[in-house]
Amino acid sequence: MAETKPEPEVEADATVALLAVSASTTKGYPHPSQSSTHALEWTLEKLIKKSSRNDFKLLLLHVQVPDEDGLDEVDSIYATPADFNEAHENDRLKCLQLLKFYVSKCHEAQVSCRAWIKQGDAKDVICREVHRLKPDILILGSRGLGPLQRMFVGGVSDYCAKKVDCPVLVIKRRPEDMPDDASED
Amino acid sequence: MAETKPEPEVEADATVALLAVSASTTKGYPHPSQSSTHALEWTLEKLIKKSSRNDFKLLLLHVQVPDEDGLDEVDSIYATPADFNEAHENDRLKCLQLLKFYVSKCHEAQVSCRAWIKQGDAKDVICREVHRLKPDILILGSRGLGPLQRMFVGGVSDYCAKKVDCPVLVIKRRPEDMPDDASED
Repeated sequence: MAETKPEPEVEADATVALLAVSASTTKGYPHPSQSSTHALEWTLEKLIKKSSRNDFKLLLLHVQVPDEDGLDEVDSIYATPADFNEAHENDRLKCLQLLKFYVSKCHEAQVSCRAWIKQGDAKDVICREVHRLKPDILILGSRGLGPLQRMFVGGVSDYCAKKVDCPVLVIKRRPEDMPDDASED
Repeated sequence: MAETKPEPEVEADATVALLAVSASTTKGYPHPSQSSTHALEWTLEKLIKKSSRNDFKLLLLHVQVPDEDGLDEVDSIYATPADFNEAHENDRLKCLQLLKFYVSKCHEAQVSCRAWIKQGDAKDVICREVHRLKPDILILGSRGLGPLQRMFVGGVSDYCAKKVDCPVLVIKRRPEDMPDDASED
């Protein structure tokens, strides 16, 4: 992404943290999820203290899940091959808008960050990116699913915590922010 | 524990991290486990940067598991009720020696800490202490058990990560430090 203002400086031995960020499951793109928003805000308040801003570098990864049933696009009409390109471009813009939300938070806190988008199954892509980039720590927001929901909806944090070698920090939503149905995020 | 030298200062909005530390499963008391040693060293290097030492406070909890089969004490002879008191006192001293190892590491890094011992089942006591003390984050070393071992040996970090509300950081041993049998620690 193009940078307009100067980036915060980063120390050579900075801790590199990879944070996976998601879109809202209820409002869809470009709205950020509650769990990722809380995870980033918590990280910027409790982990990356003001005194050590230059000692951290955040990598923000968003995994875009290919829209399998196309319900989001139900009010679009595809008549020409170009329509598909346009839809594709729309998706990309919504993704970028989502990332902008998270990147802005880092910039406000004067913490250096890089953000990018990958496509695929969230848990597989996150593990692959951890393997590729070897961050010092993987940070994941968690919806706080119950045992049954974890079985059916599938807990990304559970899966990644077992698979990756690096330290994993899982940040659940505050109990008071938890909706009746924890899969709503 | 009595403090002899002045304690590092701590900011009012310091992040309070509870780190559960264990004894070696192979060498027994007072030897520290590989996984807890690595978890503390990692925390002091990667999370609590030199610039933000005063912004963190570490709580070091050791859970002493009651010795059920008494094999460790096979060379002791219990003849009078006082012998039991002595054995008890020996256990306590070994526990304190273990804690001293971890506390010394914090002091070397000039990070404020408090350490204490509780008795019981590690995972239950850790969850109870998190509930009681409400730290900002729970940090756990992990042996990196495989799925089968987790089922039989029981993963403390798995259990606690699901049970507690606060963010949980699980730090596995480095792959190169992993013994052939991951339950050895």
